[in-house]
Amino acid sequence: MQLYNAPLEDFRFLLETLGYASVQALPGYQDYDLDTVMSLLAAGDTFCREVALPLNGVGDRVGVRFDPASGTVALPEGFRSLYARYVENGFASLGHDPAYGGGGAPHTVAVLINEMVTATNKSFSMCPGLSQGLIESIAHHGTDDQRARYLPKLIAGEWTGTMCLTEPQCGTDLGLLSTKAVPEGELYRLTGTKIWITFGEHDLAENIIHLVLARLPDAPPGIKGISVFVVPRVLPDGTRNTIACSGLEHKMGIHASPTCVMTLDGALGELVGEPHRGMRAMFTMMNVARLNVGLEGVALGDIAYQTAVAFARDRRQGRAPDPEKRERGASADNIMVHPDVRRMLLEVKSTNEAMRALAVFTSLQIDVATRHEDPAARTAAADLAALLTPVVKSYCTERGFLNVSTAMQVCGGSGFTTDWSIEQYLRDLRIAMIYEGTNHIQALDLVGRKIPADNGRGYRAWSSRVRAFCADHAGDAELAEFVAPLSHAIGVLDGLTKWLASGEADGETVGAAASGYLNAFALTALGYMWGLQVVEARARDTKFAAVKVKTARYYVNHVLPEIDVLARVAREGKRHVMAVEPDEF
Amino acid sequence: MQLYNAPLEDFRFLLETLGYASVQALPGYQDYDLDTVMSLLAAGDTFCREVALPLNGVGDRVGVRFDPASGTVALPEGFRSLYARYVENGFASLGHDPAYGGGGAPHTVAVLINEMVTATNKSFSMCPGLSQGLIESIAHHGTDDQRARYLPKLIAGEWTGTMCLTEPQCGTDLGLLSTKAVPEGELYRLTGTKIWITFGEHDLAENIIHLVLARLPDAPPGIKGISVFVVPRVLPDGTRNTIACSGLEHKMGIHASPTCVMTLDGALGELVGEPHRGMRAMFTMMNVARLNVGLEGVALGDIAYQTAVAFARDRRQGRAPDPEKRERGASADNIMVHPDVRRMLLEVKSTNEAMRALAVFTSLQIDVATRHEDPAARTAAADLAALLTPVVKSYCTERGFLNVSTAMQVCGGSGFTTDWSIEQYLRDLRIAMIYEGTNHIQALDLVGRKIPADNGRGYRAWSSRVRAFCADHAGDAELAEFVAPLSHAIGVLDGLTKWLASGEADGETVGAAASGYLNAFALTALGYMWGLQVVEARARDTKFAAVKVKTARYYVNHVLPEIDVLARVAREGKRHVMAVEPDEF
Repeated sequence: MQLYNAPLEDFRFLLETLGYASVQALPGYQDYDLDTVMSLLAAGDTFCREVALPLNGVGDRVGVRFDPASGTVALPEGFRSLYARYVENGFASLGHDPAYGGGGAPHTVAVLINEMVTATNKSFSMCPGLSQGLIESIAHHGTDDQRARYLPKLIAGEWTGTMCLTEPQCGTDLGLLSTKAVPEGELYRLTGTKIWITFGEHDLAENIIHLVLARLPDAPPGIKGISVFVVPRVLPDGTRNTIACSGLEHKMGIHASPTCVMTLDGALGELVGEPHRGMRAMFTMMNVARLNVGLEGVALGDIAYQTAVAFARDRRQGRAPDPEKRERGASADNIMVHPDVRRMLLEVKSTNEAMRALAVFTSLQIDVATRHEDPAARTAAADLAALLTPVVKSYCTERGFLNVSTAMQVCGGSGFTTDWSIEQYLRDLRIAMIYEGTNHIQALDLVGRKIPADNGRGYRAWSSRVRAFCADHAGDAELAEFVAPLSHAIGVLDGLTKWLASGEADGETVGAAASGYLNAFALTALGYMWGLQVVEARARDTKFAAVKVKTARYYVNHVLPEIDVLARVAREGKRHVMAVEPDEF
Repeated sequence: MQLYNAPLEDFRFLLETLGYASVQALPGYQDYDLDTVMSLLAAGDTFCREVALPLNGVGDRVGVRFDPASGTVALPEGFRSLYARYVENGFASLGHDPAYGGGGAPHTVAVLINEMVTATNKSFSMCPGLSQGLIESIAHHGTDDQRARYLPKLIAGEWTGTMCLTEPQCGTDLGLLSTKAVPEGELYRLTGTKIWITFGEHDLAENIIHLVLARLPDAPPGIKGISVFVVPRVLPDGTRNTIACSGLEHKMGIHASPTCVMTLDGALGELVGEPHRGMRAMFTMMNVARLNVGLEGVALGDIAYQTAVAFARDRRQGRAPDPEKRERGASADNIMVHPDVRRMLLEVKSTNEAMRALAVFTSLQIDVATRHEDPAARTAAADLAALLTPVVKSYCTERGFLNVSTAMQVCGGSGFTTDWSIEQYLRDLRIAMIYEGTNHIQALDLVGRKIPADNGRGYRAWSSRVRAFCADHAGDAELAEFVAPLSHAIGVLDGLTKWLASGEADGETVGAAASGYLNAFALTALGYMWGLQVVEARARDTKFAAVKVKTARYYVNHVLPEIDVLARVAREGKRHVMAVEPDEF
């Protein structure tokens, strides 16, 4: 049973609350007023429910088929038409440059479409998801000629893209990569093996353009010797390039997303950007990619939640603990009478809505950072986006995974069966904690790179923003229940941040504390998102707004308190962790 | 890649630390001295590694096949021989009464064998696991004649057993069950539908004996109108009884464990125990069954941990944060240099070893409760076993699930593939949080039944025991780092317990707080288990003992602090939870 309704009301509420108006005022976005955006999102909802969702279970059961003889990969029946419909709806091109046929919509609109597609068919969503990264890289680092040759086809969805980074000996540590690129005229011949290549081979589009990290012959060792190449599956003259899928991974989930081993045997490619500066090109698209991976936790958390609510509404079992709530003449009450059922649902709802808010907030910063006319505003927004992106990627996937498991628990034994599909969501989501930089890598990125950057400018701006919110509402007695815990949380976080940034904490201490620190950061950020939502909700007289306030109350009293334990444990640093030697495990 | 080595050293250490000597001194257990037990466990290890483990992946991939025409269920190839070898090794009969052909071993020995079998082939382990419950029920509630007719075959493993409790409209709430039993001579004709029947049909043994809950025609409504029947698949005259499998569930995991819909169409059965007193017979076997389900979390947590350690030992990626630990001439260091890798492994190790200790401790209490000559000692042990069983069942499965996920995270992308098998362990384990009474039902059992029982006698004895441990070692400065946090934890728990037991907390408040309370109880219990282990370890001069102390240190500083948040959130009670109305989700 797969059911889904896009959270359109929440989308609108968040866009209004978190400053979409100022994004729409940016150059080029005039056509995308909120009503226009909402009708686009409504179209997305229809597409997702009618086209993407019915194929989600099929994709899981049938999976992809690899033919070793031809090196081709077949997607389950229906996926070609799914992709075609996705393109027809304009979703592939939505956020891209109109100069190359894109829709020119704010990035944030594409992000929300993406949440819906991910919720209803995560495997499928990864195909256009990977194209995004390639498009961004070529748009930012390609030559005019490259842009003209690649972008129109990619944006139109006629071609799709991949990211070929990982090799058997190097995943997290890209400095170890060994794929070679040897110049041949204006092009290069690439040789090596890439693994974990999502949609590295498939039958949805007429060509696949691979973005490949490799080393030139004169490359220095390590991360500073990496260059980026574009390697098409089919060459411009119509011949097959010597890059081919040589096998598929067998995975716990995302069975309709082919994870390919790609073998490059002197494949022809062209350089994108400067030699040896490939990692810069990668970082360009990483924020967007990581934000979208974080949203996978929100998306699958939401569809699992909706499923659990539907199950709970229908199920009767046991009597209400409060005798007054027992239904007369019935032998059992609806399970919503049980406090633990509501507790589980609120655990999901209160974290997931705040995680979505944080992702939307971050996405709006990316829009501002891209388009604002004032460089200072661009910088401030870019700082925030850079700071929050690892938090969104890590926390939303980790909590999202727990949330899907909690939704399963609401359904009891039914949740463990394929009938209710939550088990698929759990399997499909688990990889999000690992790929696009494992969650601990996000934590190291946060504490080791994002926070120290520019002498802590981004963090200070963030902390000041949260503190300013608390100060602005300090006199409002009705808000105190939300402001006081947030004020406490930002104090805890500031203290931890100062400690980690001080010389006191050495590299191992920072490594030991980083993951806990990121979670403490996230809990505070979610508390701030609830604060913003409560202020907006109080100005409205709707049931939706009233439930927002109740949900916020659950968050600050049941979830946010975790920050104290995280902070305390983080302060233990490395001593107990590094005391156990490798051979003692 | 499936690898496993039974934790034999830990088994021995725990048996020595937690009082196996006094169990061996009980009547009938003289032959089972520790060396004998250890050689049995070593034989179990060999069986598990050589026979059970190689079929674990096959079982998952091939699964069970149902033939609707004949109503038969075929296990994957090799499982018949696996079962035969299990029986030949004496594991089916180990803990049972020698009068009926059993091995007469202490219950605890069978529990440890069970941990190993579960770790290496959870699906398979469920077949003999269900027989245990049936054997217990007939042994305790059957007539001499019933015992003579059923126990020898069941104990010999020639027949297997099931537990037919759940129906489509009743799982948690058995009071709703509607299967009818109509007298016919000395027997009964049973009609109804049972679901979630583990190994309800299979081809491993010559007969299947179903324990079926049903209502007699004159039964009062609700839970007090349930009787227990034994319904054989094949009747004594060799004809097929009219109980048959009519379908299988399709599940996230345990694919080689058939989960059957059983249809009873006037099936012949005989009453076990008194009419309408069936739930008493159920409670007899529930402690053992729930303890074993708790151990599933330990078992799969352990094999996943071992897999993660093997992966980590082999994998190089990135450089050590401490420059002195960088390996010269290598381009990357082993990932054990990264504090977060050790943190993840310690998170699993420090909880899993303490959970195993708690399960063994509880199991030893069951042995004492069964065999001790002094009724007061029996009662005291039975109190403890009753109190701790829901804690073991719920906490070990919940934390075990997180632990398997953490072990997967250590392996990065590989962990998500079928190559490393952790993904199977995660899928196989998830159901343990649901079946045999969902984890919240365990929490309600703890706060609503076990703690109030006999005016809190069991809880008071437990709390006194923990406090006595703290008092006994209060003067030992070297132990202070373990005793002080434990002393704090039991104080927190006592306070919570008093609050929940007071009239102050109404039914909804108790329901809202119960799951958090159970986890607070568990964290304290695990702290106590670490205290006992540290005291024992300090008296030894081995590497194993030294690592125990370091692991305990991790636990009290990184895990036990969670209790403060649990206590604080539990005290919020129902107010935020019940504030959200059913139609507001």
